Amino acid sequence: MNGSASGNRFRGVYAIPPTPFDDDGELDERSLRRVVEFCVMAGAHGIVAPVNASEAIILTDAERLRVAEIVVEQTAGRVPVVIGVSGISTAASVLYTRHAAQIGADAVIAMPPYVKHPPASEIPDFYAAVARAGQGLPVWIQNNLGPVGTSMSPELLARMLRDIPEVAFIKEESEYPTQVISQVQALAGDDLQGIMGGMGGRFLLEEYRRGACGTMPASEVADALVLVWNALDEGDEARARELHTQLLPMLNYEALYTYAIYKEVLVKRGIIASSRSRVPGAPVLDAENHREIDALLKQIGPLLTMGMHPKINV
Amino acid sequence: MNGSASGNRFRGVYAIPPTPFDDDGELDERSLRRVVEFCVMAGAHGIVAPVNASEAIILTDAERLRVAEIVVEQTAGRVPVVIGVSGISTAASVLYTRHAAQIGADAVIAMPPYVKHPPASEIPDFYAAVARAGQGLPVWIQNNLGPVGTSMSPELLARMLRDIPEVAFIKEESEYPTQVISQVQALAGDDLQGIMGGMGGRFLLEEYRRGACGTMPASEVADALVLVWNALDEGDEARARELHTQLLPMLNYEALYTYAIYKEVLVKRGIIASSRSRVPGAPVLDAENHREIDALLKQIGPLLTMGMHPKINV
Amino acid sequence: MNGSASGNRFRGVYAIPPTPFDDDGELDERSLRRVVEFCVMAGAHGIVAPVNASEAIILTDAERLRVAEIVVEQTAGRVPVVIGVSGISTAASVLYTRHAAQIGADAVIAMPPYVKHPPASEIPDFYAAVARAGQGLPVWIQNNLGPVGTSMSPELLARMLRDIPEVAFIKEESEYPTQVISQVQALAGDDLQGIMGGMGGRFLLEEYRRGACGTMPASEVADALVLVWNALDEGDEARARELHTQLLPMLNYEALYTYAIYKEVLVKRGIIASSRSRVPGAPVLDAENHREIDALLKQIGPLLTMGMHPKINV
Amino acid sequence: MNGSASGNRFRGVYAIPPTPFDDDGELDERSLRRVVEFCVMAGAHGIVAPVNASEAIILTDAERLRVAEIVVEQTAGRVPVVIGVSGISTAASVLYTRHAAQIGADAVIAMPPYVKHPPASEIPDFYAAVARAGQGLPVWIQNNLGPVGTSMSPELLARMLRDIPEVAFIKEESEYPTQVISQVQALAGDDLQGIMGGMGGRFLLEEYRRGACGTMPASEVADALVLVWNALDEGDEARARELHTQLLPMLNYEALYTYAIYKEVLVKRGIIASSRSRVPGAPVLDAENHREIDALLKQIGPLLTMGMHPKINV
Repeated sequence: MNGSASGNRFRGVYAIPPTPFDDDGELDERSLRRVVEFCVMAGAHGIVAPVNASEAIILTDAERLRVAEIVVEQTAGRVPVVIGVSGISTAASVLYTRHAAQIGADAVIAMPPYVKHPPASEIPDFYAAVARAGQGLPVWIQNNLGPVGTSMSPELLARMLRDIPEVAFIKEESEYPTQVISQVQALAGDDLQGIMGGMGGRFLLEEYRRGACGTMPASEVADALVLVWNALDEGDEARARELHTQLLPMLNYEALYTYAIYKEVLVKRGIIASSRSRVPGAPVLDAENHREIDALLKQIGPLLTMGMHPKINV
Repeated sequence: MNGSASGNRFRGVYAIPPTPFDDDGELDERSLRRVVEFCVMAGAHGIVAPVNASEAIILTDAERLRVAEIVVEQTAGRVPVVIGVSGISTAASVLYTRHAAQIGADAVIAMPPYVKHPPASEIPDFYAAVARAGQGLPVWIQNNLGPVGTSMSPELLARMLRDIPEVAFIKEESEYPTQVISQVQALAGDDLQGIMGGMGGRFLLEEYRRGACGTMPASEVADALVLVWNALDEGDEARARELHTQLLPMLNYEALYTYAIYKEVLVKRGIIASSRSRVPGAPVLDAENHREIDALLKQIGPLLTMGMHPKINV
Repeated sequence: MNGSASGNRFRGVYAIPPTPFDDDGELDERSLRRVVEFCVMAGAHGIVAPVNASEAIILTDAERLRVAEIVVEQTAGRVPVVIGVSGISTAASVLYTRHAAQIGADAVIAMPPYVKHPPASEIPDFYAAVARAGQGLPVWIQNNLGPVGTSMSPELLARMLRDIPEVAFIKEESEYPTQVISQVQALAGDDLQGIMGGMGGRFLLEEYRRGACGTMPASEVADALVLVWNALDEGDEARARELHTQLLPMLNYEALYTYAIYKEVLVKRGIIASSRSRVPGAPVLDAENHREIDALLKQIGPLLTMGMHPKINV
Repeated sequence: MNGSASGNRFRGVYAIPPTPFDDDGELDERSLRRVVEFCVMAGAHGIVAPVNASEAIILTDAERLRVAEIVVEQTAGRVPVVIGVSGISTAASVLYTRHAAQIGADAVIAMPPYVKHPPASEIPDFYAAVARAGQGLPVWIQNNLGPVGTSMSPELLARMLRDIPEVAFIKEESEYPTQVISQVQALAGDDLQGIMGGMGGRFLLEEYRRGACGTMPASEVADALVLVWNALDEGDEARARELHTQLLPMLNYEALYTYAIYKEVLVKRGIIASSRSRVPGAPVLDAENHREIDALLKQIGPLLTMGMHPKINV
């Protein structure tokens, strides 16, 4: 497998829309449609939801399924949609996966169950169950640190890539993730059809050089990340590094204040209505945070190809 | 509040039925009804489900609601039913609580959300939301260690007991739980209408002496625990201690092998059909474990007032 | 290997004296000598220190070495001494092990480093370094749950038993420990020269039946545990179970209030001077705890072969 | 307190030298002297060691004290030295603090004990003991996330700043650290004489604007960070942001591969002899990592005021 090759089924910036809520904490469907639309218009090569950056860990089952439906519907086949099916148990992930298959998703992505985490010996059965539920849908393994993720060794990943036909893709963001990208490719060979980086795209250049076929970041500056990716894919690493460096302070701020940044930037850009998060302990921004976001947005202004306030017809 | 007084609305052994599954991992409704029936016939003073010992952390939302319905239906008002409404988010707990109110539960019990745990400052809002959703239902706070539970200080517990009228009961199993039972009573006074112990009943005698109005254990030897409780309530501490000591090796084995013991003992007693657990990493018993369970069951034979193989008409 | 066989080099109750402090938190050497003497007089078959129950995790290096010296000196060859050499790094464990070899210890016991825990791939190097530092001293692996312990698989244990000649003994108290006792024996065969249980002796009967050659408990009721062990070794399992059941409420209370019980019982028995603990968050007993300890001591009075207040000439 | 004011006793970039080891894992004293010398020559406004970035968690007590001595000796009063005294217990921190006072350190910095972490109620006693041991030395509180750090609320920090005269400084790197910098200043007023940021300097601009009087980063690009700080202190935020953005990819890489980057960059710059780390699980760099470091060093070349290969006379 070589991420730099052109034949990948899934390739590029796979943006993760957040799950917008209204002031009562209810799902804001219109804002969700608008942010999906923004991602597609911004040139994202695919859409991934609901996953960690979508606050999937606090959605009820009904909300999970509704988010998936809206995302598939709004994307309308323009780019691939990968539905997040991580959950509290195999049964939950199977439920989400069956639904994803029914509504026409292009793939699913899962971490192992995350209230009690399975030991390594039980993880292949989990992914096999997800694969069966998907009835042929490609399955992405998300390799992620705890406490929500379950870190899996390159050897375990390679074994599942070999043994479960639908399991052919990895999103890698465990410890020392850029190294793992190399290790999994070396171990899995052709059993691996694509590996993407995570970590908000903060290590995208090295991931690309190591063979990653894309990245799955949050969506608030998806247009800027697409710009970086396209420079990479045009072979202009110097230009990519320059753009990436310019973008990095914003990506870092996102890493620090997470949900609040994913959403507040989208609010400031006029894409979603509220930055409310439902995750326990989510940060609440103060005036100085807002000043910093504004400074960072100004700094990356030239990279926001959709403009600071994109026009979205939803 | 004095747990030894007779006026408690909730008092005694509140048994927790497990959630039985069939060999495909599907909810085995008949076995669930049978274990609920066993608990009532065994003299349990109340029923609590689905909570930790019911594998609530791996049930889908639909399964959670179905378990609650069956438990309320099968109990049929003979003893109070406390529905477990802990979940991954306030929204999930609110969903379960509304349903509990609709189906006629007598109370709900909740830990704070458990994928990401709220900081102390956000916990009162969580319980207030549960209380509102219950439309007057009494609310139990379950004070429990991580990684699933969220340990709350006696001060925080007392503040919520004071500020949220429906919050009037505690199940205590945090660090140094017998001390906390005393501390919460001292701080909360009449705002606390009842506090029960947990920890499988292993510290029941001291909890009773400190004012606990009951205990919420698993159900596989509910008849034996009722015997201990009744001795306590008849004022015969010496007899209670003797019975409790005889029972303790079984309670300890349950603490070590958890779900496997809750269920396997019920299988051996002919009450449920399968000991299958769906919790990741749940123990799988070997031949020597079975030998030990048999030895322990023999040891506590005289305490099993329902007989080793109770006759249950469900 | 068969724990029931008589040929074991280390066999029986290996008692762990606590590290007594005076009211300023300084090492109380006389009390330490007295509790070591108590253990030997009580019939303990060996002494283990400083380990978890000795608050080893909060001792300075100088204190660690001093405790080891006193324990070896006071035991004076009457029974084997196993020196605890777990520490914050390989360098620390090597330091303690070299010293143990110099002062004439009979073996050392170690968990992997515990501030940052090594991944499984680095653990054999740790034990190999300890083995080298011991210059021939037998090495015990302590298999223990986090956050202080590092849980190791039976496969990893067996590999180290095979590859590192000095590593020939296990203290097992990871998840599902009685099963692991069987699994390690099956995998390691003759590479394993002895495996002891931990968990305060609460599962001693099953451990014995599974082939354990002993147990490493705290010391405050060492005389009672020796009684149970000797019944087992005399082949009288029924008697052993009866004694063990009588003792279990005390062992459970010890499991709940840990350091406070290890020490307070020794204070009540007149063996050490103060129950002060230096471990952060260690419990402070209240009046009701004292009442419970007194009740438990009364219950096990007949098992305290040294008498409630043993006469110790130190 | 206002970090932008000029009167701070401690102010600017307080660089943290790593603890260099030779190939046997022994302390490499010459390399340590050279990196201290580099920091001073690079314009660092102070030196901090041994702390997290110095692998303090795996040093024996003797090594801790030796590192402290060398750092004080080599710095020779040219800039203030803050000795790290975090340890496994109050006794350990007291030991290190007494020694720091004896050897002429300018201050000490401590996290609470980190094998078992104290509950909030015990933390003031810990810092009071450190303060007493310092005999007047200023004490910094390091507010840091787990598992090694203990996160303390702004309220608790303010209370200790008020109640313990020597405690007058904070290094802040808990959750949402830039917000905490504002919150502590608001709560503590004049009781706080200085607060520095951590997190490798990745959020330095916002920290400065919020009143931080400095930052405590690792040392491998100390010259570049001094450049950023000086631009800030000259009031040229635009220039500072430009420099900081240029530097950020390297700071991020350091955040991902930690010890390996702290040391390998210093090796590549000819300052220390080996990049060996003794922390369990520390990353081992592969060829692609080296390529990335080289690219990053090239990118920040103009910011390395000491030159890529500084001449150091030690």
